[in-house]
Amino acid sequence: MTPEQAGAFLTVDLKKIADNWKKLQARVGEKTQVAAVLKTDAYGLDAKKIAPALYRAGCRIFFTAYVFEAVEIRQVLPADARIYVLHGVLAHTELDFLKYDLIPVLSTPRQVADWNHLGHKENRILPAALHIDTGMTRLGLNEKNVDDFCANVPPYLDVSLVISHLACADDPENAKNEDQLHRFDSLCAKLRQALPNGFKESLSASDGVHLENKSFYKDIARPGIALYDGAVSLEAKVLQIQDVEAGHTIGYGATHTFSDKARVATLAIGYGDGYPRSLANKGYVAFNGLKAPIVGRISMDLITVDVTDIDLKELRQIPTAEIFGQHCPIKEIAKLAGTIDYELLTNLSKRFYRIYTD
Amino acid sequence: MTPEQAGAFLTVDLKKIADNWKKLQARVGEKTQVAAVLKTDAYGLDAKKIAPALYRAGCRIFFTAYVFEAVEIRQVLPADARIYVLHGVLAHTELDFLKYDLIPVLSTPRQVADWNHLGHKENRILPAALHIDTGMTRLGLNEKNVDDFCANVPPYLDVSLVISHLACADDPENAKNEDQLHRFDSLCAKLRQALPNGFKESLSASDGVHLENKSFYKDIARPGIALYDGAVSLEAKVLQIQDVEAGHTIGYGATHTFSDKARVATLAIGYGDGYPRSLANKGYVAFNGLKAPIVGRISMDLITVDVTDIDLKELRQIPTAEIFGQHCPIKEIAKLAGTIDYELLTNLSKRFYRIYTD
Repeated sequence: MTPEQAGAFLTVDLKKIADNWKKLQARVGEKTQVAAVLKTDAYGLDAKKIAPALYRAGCRIFFTAYVFEAVEIRQVLPADARIYVLHGVLAHTELDFLKYDLIPVLSTPRQVADWNHLGHKENRILPAALHIDTGMTRLGLNEKNVDDFCANVPPYLDVSLVISHLACADDPENAKNEDQLHRFDSLCAKLRQALPNGFKESLSASDGVHLENKSFYKDIARPGIALYDGAVSLEAKVLQIQDVEAGHTIGYGATHTFSDKARVATLAIGYGDGYPRSLANKGYVAFNGLKAPIVGRISMDLITVDVTDIDLKELRQIPTAEIFGQHCPIKEIAKLAGTIDYELLTNLSKRFYRIYTD
Repeated sequence: MTPEQAGAFLTVDLKKIADNWKKLQARVGEKTQVAAVLKTDAYGLDAKKIAPALYRAGCRIFFTAYVFEAVEIRQVLPADARIYVLHGVLAHTELDFLKYDLIPVLSTPRQVADWNHLGHKENRILPAALHIDTGMTRLGLNEKNVDDFCANVPPYLDVSLVISHLACADDPENAKNEDQLHRFDSLCAKLRQALPNGFKESLSASDGVHLENKSFYKDIARPGIALYDGAVSLEAKVLQIQDVEAGHTIGYGATHTFSDKARVATLAIGYGDGYPRSLANKGYVAFNGLKAPIVGRISMDLITVDVTDIDLKELRQIPTAEIFGQHCPIKEIAKLAGTIDYELLTNLSKRFYRIYTD
């Protein structure tokens, strides 16, 4: 796809991402190492582009959800990058971990047993991380599983890291944060008895590293979305500008009726590009910083915006409208859509022409 | 990505898609030719796989939104397939149309003038379609534009098709349907005076071909979503099954509290795969046909479902849960998510292992 063929342009500022990582590292202090969570293709932004930029900034620890995501970034990272796979070892993917030097985050007694079994079979100690559940009830060993583990330590595992995940870190006042911290510390204390060689601890993702209490930062912090703050912008081409009479309706279901004469611009973006349908008659875009509200429903490939208040001469000079960016903050647009910026980012289309700036 | 590495499996039944197309062709009768709308990569299902299957079924007319989408399917379709590009000629893409034998759907006086100008420059008659607006207020020539066109017919265009788009065809009782039909007929009548060689007409997409009144079908029908009815299913792997105590909470924000002891399965799918966040505490999946409600929020890579009512022995035999399919109809899931199946389909992730059956 060429820029001419594309309907919209996604710009990713790799320097800003590197700067965000450095700021997080400065914030947590040198006792904590800041990793990078690059699952879901780096939240839709292309992990192969983001991973080397973060490595150059100083990042040495990376997390993905799946082993195929880890293999992708392994191919663009130097050998001293440690890559952990959060979903652990799915059946029959063991050899991928060995071949590409990847470390599984083991979440279940079964995964622990299978990985240890492989070590036994290969007669070597295998690197591993443990995921313990402290209240998210999603993935991870529970207290009983940890007790069983400690009572019978699998001899072929080198556990370098123990992680858990906070459920309510976006709400600093939530008592669940402290509760999870105490559970984490208590389970790690048990594990330290069983694993005398020691291991690193990790509890916080993007929201956790913004909590005031530094006890949450532990040895390794795992930001994801926080890396992309201010680094992403999206522009869509103007396909048509038209004047409409009072009383006209617009879009599927004719959900908006113009009470006065108006002017409408049609833009080359829609829910088929990941722009949420829930923004119908709610969202807005910007032309050179001037806001234009969405009128009517979001189509698969198109949106329509009211540009009556923008000078027509000026409008005709503007080839693209801002969809996300300085004047249309992605967090604010996500709120209007009834969701969070994470979902908007990860749904971003492959149809955009992508520009990476350094 | 191998099936072992994947978290979820998307199955696309190409035979069912071909059958759907044949049924639509039978429904509208032989006066109407049924085309296929394959924009947004065939609604996320891979246009390069779908286009040849539809061609084999008898389809000879295809529509995409962008020229790069058209180039993709041109490469897998025989030369007698006609491919129209709905967004028309974006600036500096003219030569793509000539090189790949693609027909632009011209929507604005500017696009008409530019395309005619190219014909003049190349000294050849160029194929074209016209988009006329009959009440959608999105893309297309309005009545005045049509009058101007007729008063001064561009000599270098061979207009083979005139299309418009219904705004409310999903609501057969809506008076806007008849209103758009009358406008369409009246504008086409004017164009017939100006274009004595004639042209085909197209007004209906998926919903339009289900209206009772055959006058809506015209020469060419343009179904999109209707092609995929019952042809798509999605399964996600079970990553963990765990028992939880009464009083426990689950997921981000701890939005669900278990009133009794319960059992929870964690599945390898999330909003990062296009499974909507709005299904939190609302959606459901199915294990061998047995429904399991979603508990807690949708994570980026994971969902958690309540499997307390499913026999544990049986559950342990089931490696994947149905996300969309026979027991989880995509239209119903979309409704629970507050949207339509079109949006779910087009958001489907590239992370799925895809299976195409014939």
